[in-house]
Amino acid sequence: MVRPVIELINRYDAGKFPKGESYIILSSNENPYPPAEDVLKAIERSIKKVTNRYPDPEYPELKRAIAEYLEVDVNEIFLGNGISDCIYNICNALLDTLDKVTIPMPSYTMYAMYSIVRDASINYRIYPYYKIDIEDFIESVRNSKLVFLCSPNNPTGNAIPIKRIKEIVESVRGYVALDEAYVEFSDASAIKLTDTYENLIVMRTFSKFFGLAGLRIGYGICKDERVVSALEKIRLPFCINYIGAIAGVEAIKCLDYYKKIRDIIVKERERVYRELSKFEEIEVFPSKANFLLVKSENLRLAEKLEKRKILVRDVTGLMGLSGEHVRITIGKPEENNALLNALEEILS
Amino acid sequence: MVRPVIELINRYDAGKFPKGESYIILSSNENPYPPAEDVLKAIERSIKKVTNRYPDPEYPELKRAIAEYLEVDVNEIFLGNGISDCIYNICNALLDTLDKVTIPMPSYTMYAMYSIVRDASINYRIYPYYKIDIEDFIESVRNSKLVFLCSPNNPTGNAIPIKRIKEIVESVRGYVALDEAYVEFSDASAIKLTDTYENLIVMRTFSKFFGLAGLRIGYGICKDERVVSALEKIRLPFCINYIGAIAGVEAIKCLDYYKKIRDIIVKERERVYRELSKFEEIEVFPSKANFLLVKSENLRLAEKLEKRKILVRDVTGLMGLSGEHVRITIGKPEENNALLNALEEILS
Repeated sequence: MVRPVIELINRYDAGKFPKGESYIILSSNENPYPPAEDVLKAIERSIKKVTNRYPDPEYPELKRAIAEYLEVDVNEIFLGNGISDCIYNICNALLDTLDKVTIPMPSYTMYAMYSIVRDASINYRIYPYYKIDIEDFIESVRNSKLVFLCSPNNPTGNAIPIKRIKEIVESVRGYVALDEAYVEFSDASAIKLTDTYENLIVMRTFSKFFGLAGLRIGYGICKDERVVSALEKIRLPFCINYIGAIAGVEAIKCLDYYKKIRDIIVKERERVYRELSKFEEIEVFPSKANFLLVKSENLRLAEKLEKRKILVRDVTGLMGLSGEHVRITIGKPEENNALLNALEEILS
Repeated sequence: MVRPVIELINRYDAGKFPKGESYIILSSNENPYPPAEDVLKAIERSIKKVTNRYPDPEYPELKRAIAEYLEVDVNEIFLGNGISDCIYNICNALLDTLDKVTIPMPSYTMYAMYSIVRDASINYRIYPYYKIDIEDFIESVRNSKLVFLCSPNNPTGNAIPIKRIKEIVESVRGYVALDEAYVEFSDASAIKLTDTYENLIVMRTFSKFFGLAGLRIGYGICKDERVVSALEKIRLPFCINYIGAIAGVEAIKCLDYYKKIRDIIVKERERVYRELSKFEEIEVFPSKANFLLVKSENLRLAEKLEKRKILVRDVTGLMGLSGEHVRITIGKPEENNALLNALEEILS
């Protein structure tokens, strides 16, 4: 009696979660640094007072902080329990049975999953390493009700130039949902395009740049007030937990700390990229995110690194990626050194 | 371009969230007591280590703790970001367009909302104060794909006898989703019925008895492994935040503390019920939950109590309730005294 289409869905694979302290975790694109001191203090101060209370479902302080951070209007913001929840709600608000959804692959698997839950008709476009062929893509999206884009893209790391995003948004009669989870590690956001294009929905998160993955705070921006109103209506009233709402507000106040961390991570990304490029046995792809995609052949890198107590994500078999691939999150410098040393051992 | 049916939905009304410390909050059916000391300590210990990390999406420790608490098998448990998320996922997993959903009213508004999102055909059954006429109801549910029940019911407080729940479950060919958010304040749970009836889905929460409303932990029990598998697949992979997952496990270890609190709340509920019954101008309904429903006529009680810095929920106008009603959460003894004194003033 479960809907047959649900039975067809594969469960989300979040990788391995070994117990114990001894692993270097470079598998989930997390920020390796702890929250700013003021964020920790704000959480500590609030625990006793708020855990038994529901947060204000309008989340006025959080929305005000986001509005200030991105220089957008409070009324253009919708919230979610992470970006995945925003995707779930967008699909439920916009998609009718057999509506066409276009998703370039490889990319984050939740776009397809929640489109399938809506019985949408999915138009997958596969381009090597997500380098979208813009003419082909624009041709393919014309009748789409919804187009998902991820920039910088997970798991490839490359970003779509803003100019290209603009062209895509202009050519879609339906909506473009752009996932900018990793955008703070890149050069440019498409947020400003929402001023001009009411059919652009940009999704963001506190999980990466702000390092609050454990607290589940996602949000999005759209100029179309009917879309924002719909997404705010159908989301869970208390989609963001009380401690997350408090931490998010405080994190935005500590922007300088997060920018410093970001600069370290970006510098490390470039260093690790250069070092990985020296290994002849693997291919590493340039990235604008906090991770690197690595292609190999019959090397079983994820497995060998795990034996050396380093976790990376094996993305082999992900739709749109052909051949053996791992995705490696950029950690702290010493963690990255351990990774490079381990690869030296494995590949020598 | 938003689906028209979404535009028809009314936004969830969570009542007022005034700023400032000076209100007595009896409006959201929260547990008035803070978490057990060990729960607070577990949260404090974990903040720095886990806020930047994703939790294990299988939540093995939390599921093991729930399994022990309810004496069920780990494989019968599904999770959600509060019960509302469980409802959202149940509707998405089970309902096709125009499938019949039966909902006795008045009750929690989310059942209808997420059924509407699935374009289901809703069969509302209205019985005075939710006293279900069992013959009528059984007749009305025969062709339902899904029946929602809430026991003890929000906002009326009355519980459906387990024997009646059994009769309903037996007469439904589809599924019965039973919301037991408040069950720990009552005498009996229907959890044991899941052993016999694969079409019974029982939903539970850490928000009431365990006083963790701010952390958003919902779950459910069903013997049908295809249902559990479907609900575990389509839920957000990280639907419960990391701190919530840790607090939930610890809360179950502190069961004795929560039982003591519960006994105080239940005793207070009976005392407040007796006291409220003495006012001739209002009608108060017996309750098995941590709140009381009060009917009045042209008294504007919620407004008058708010002026006295006491917040109760005005549920006037809720589908299935005719006339002026407020729902009053049972607070700490001193808060309940303040309420009774204020009502004494207002009604004298």
